[in-house]
Amino acid sequence: MKFYIAKSRRLRSTPYTSRIENQGVTAYTTYNHMLLPASFGNLEKEYFHLKKHVQIWDVAAERQIQIKGKDATKLVQLMTCRNLSKAKVGRCYYAPIIDEQGGMLNDPVALKLGEDKWWLSLADSDIGLYAKGIASGLNLHVEICELDVNIMAVQGPKSFKLMEKVLGKKITELKFFGFDYYTFKENKFLIARSGWSKQGGFEIYVENREAGQNLYDELFSAGKEFKVEPGCPNLIERIESALLSAGNDFDNGDNPYECGFDKYVDIESNINYLGKKALLKIFKEGIDRKLMGVLIDADKIEVTEEISLYSGDNIAGNLRSATYSPNLKKVVGIAMIQKEYWDKKNSIELKIGDKKSKGKICDLPIVTG
Amino acid sequence: MKFYIAKSRRLRSTPYTSRIENQGVTAYTTYNHMLLPASFGNLEKEYFHLKKHVQIWDVAAERQIQIKGKDATKLVQLMTCRNLSKAKVGRCYYAPIIDEQGGMLNDPVALKLGEDKWWLSLADSDIGLYAKGIASGLNLHVEICELDVNIMAVQGPKSFKLMEKVLGKKITELKFFGFDYYTFKENKFLIARSGWSKQGGFEIYVENREAGQNLYDELFSAGKEFKVEPGCPNLIERIESALLSAGNDFDNGDNPYECGFDKYVDIESNINYLGKKALLKIFKEGIDRKLMGVLIDADKIEVTEEISLYSGDNIAGNLRSATYSPNLKKVVGIAMIQKEYWDKKNSIELKIGDKKSKGKICDLPIVTG
Repeated sequence: MKFYIAKSRRLRSTPYTSRIENQGVTAYTTYNHMLLPASFGNLEKEYFHLKKHVQIWDVAAERQIQIKGKDATKLVQLMTCRNLSKAKVGRCYYAPIIDEQGGMLNDPVALKLGEDKWWLSLADSDIGLYAKGIASGLNLHVEICELDVNIMAVQGPKSFKLMEKVLGKKITELKFFGFDYYTFKENKFLIARSGWSKQGGFEIYVENREAGQNLYDELFSAGKEFKVEPGCPNLIERIESALLSAGNDFDNGDNPYECGFDKYVDIESNINYLGKKALLKIFKEGIDRKLMGVLIDADKIEVTEEISLYSGDNIAGNLRSATYSPNLKKVVGIAMIQKEYWDKKNSIELKIGDKKSKGKICDLPIVTG
Repeated sequence: MKFYIAKSRRLRSTPYTSRIENQGVTAYTTYNHMLLPASFGNLEKEYFHLKKHVQIWDVAAERQIQIKGKDATKLVQLMTCRNLSKAKVGRCYYAPIIDEQGGMLNDPVALKLGEDKWWLSLADSDIGLYAKGIASGLNLHVEICELDVNIMAVQGPKSFKLMEKVLGKKITELKFFGFDYYTFKENKFLIARSGWSKQGGFEIYVENREAGQNLYDELFSAGKEFKVEPGCPNLIERIESALLSAGNDFDNGDNPYECGFDKYVDIESNINYLGKKALLKIFKEGIDRKLMGVLIDADKIEVTEEISLYSGDNIAGNLRSATYSPNLKKVVGIAMIQKEYWDKKNSIELKIGDKKSKGKICDLPIVTG
């Protein structure tokens, strides 16, 4: 069954909404109280196009929380288990945010804009409120606000050629997860080499709406020779690549170790963050479940809540995201798997209604490249 | 243009989702990361039905944040400008939540369940994160969690007869904004006389999913004689009645005075809450804009972002919610109106594309009863 989305001011539109609606967007999700395109009508076609050409995405829903002031770095560090003490201006840091119990709250990319100025490019939860609460409680000297910054992403293997054509040679020197400012028609844009696909590309942090719309249009004009198309984060590509989705693959009931974020957890140095004591305890005790990939012999699936995966009569884990991969000719998914099934030798079974499908557990990412 | 909603685990389903989909829901919005039905196909028919009969609503998206522990009351009071020092167990309190700058964050109903136990029945923002931040910052002795409580509302003038039939005579003694526990088939339910319409009714805070589904089904069986129908918060009814919607009618850029919440702001007593200093300053300086109603001579409208209202060449205010009222044969709306236009003698003009419509400003609520 399909259902319409009831639009309202509360589900905020973006500077690109009228453009993508003219370009044929068919479905939205919501993310940070904003519309995020989910399909232009053919997920599989969009998947193959993304892996071969270049797409422009309206990902304004990746909202930016700006934290600035003399305690800004202290506050950002308090929220994340990643050690940011050596962070450099001009770099992006994937930074899991946790609560005092060690439960996941978000997994933003943190951009260090200055010694006292950070942006958190958020997944779907109101981390600005967490930051405000901590700052008020500790009486920190910071200003916290959501910016009117609206990201468009340029993703796919031909994104490099397209960006070079529109923004000049210098953009090709930008390293992965670096950012810098680039000029288009006298407007400066913060551009990062990043994005919610593994196909390569850029995220353009648009601070001036009209200038951003002009750049959006220019990318389509200039991109014709590269077969540019409108697109959006692609469910098939992101599951195959194991780009985890907060709220889908993990939530507040999960800790960073269970999500496989071990390399972003610092429990050894003397940095101070909320939840450090809890993570230390979890580390010592060890975890008994973690996120893994699954491959299932089925030709379609829709996941709207956790679905149990069985090994015989026992529950081996819970499927949290899944879709059919036209590439692998199987359903690919991300699931929280119990420890006794981590060795991948077990076959698993998925029951949806009366239908049973066989499958197996695999490492993440499911597909590389 | 109409667009589908792309479902996923992140946009959580409710215990009633499969039921309302069988009953003909056509559109969803999202609210607190959850599906909230927005229409069963004919908003106007649903409006007239709600005002005459009784409807059952899946409003599980009104999520409950539980705050308990010896500092629970202190924390709840820190978040709201309403004086809760005399709050009684068994009562609901409409309690605007603000930040340290006095900006609106949410407008939940706070339920006092015990001296050290509160539920916040939230509008659409992650206030649990604000609470966690404050609690960590101040090292408060509280436990904060989102409960698996899934509200169904019974709304409309015949809700009293239906609830009496299913739950017994005692429910008729419940006062407005009171709550108590009632038993159906050996399961206890917290039921409040409240709801997101002005047509009278109840909200059933379901703590046991299966028991709630059984009660849902029973309300439909027993409700046949009252012409019960599935429904949802009705855009026409809520605008006419001025039931404000966080994110639509106000946001973090607005303060409680601008929203007309004066009677829920305490700046005189010695209670302690974040933003008190800011509100005191705003009170002394006075506000220069506030939310008011508008009536516009038009037969349809869709509001997805603020729309300017003109008086001559000047902007008199910004329209934030609006819909066509089949009752008043006009568009009704809620708008933030500049002070010089509060006297209501001015006519206003709405421009959407090339189309201009005349209208006037009015008090809230637009319709009483």
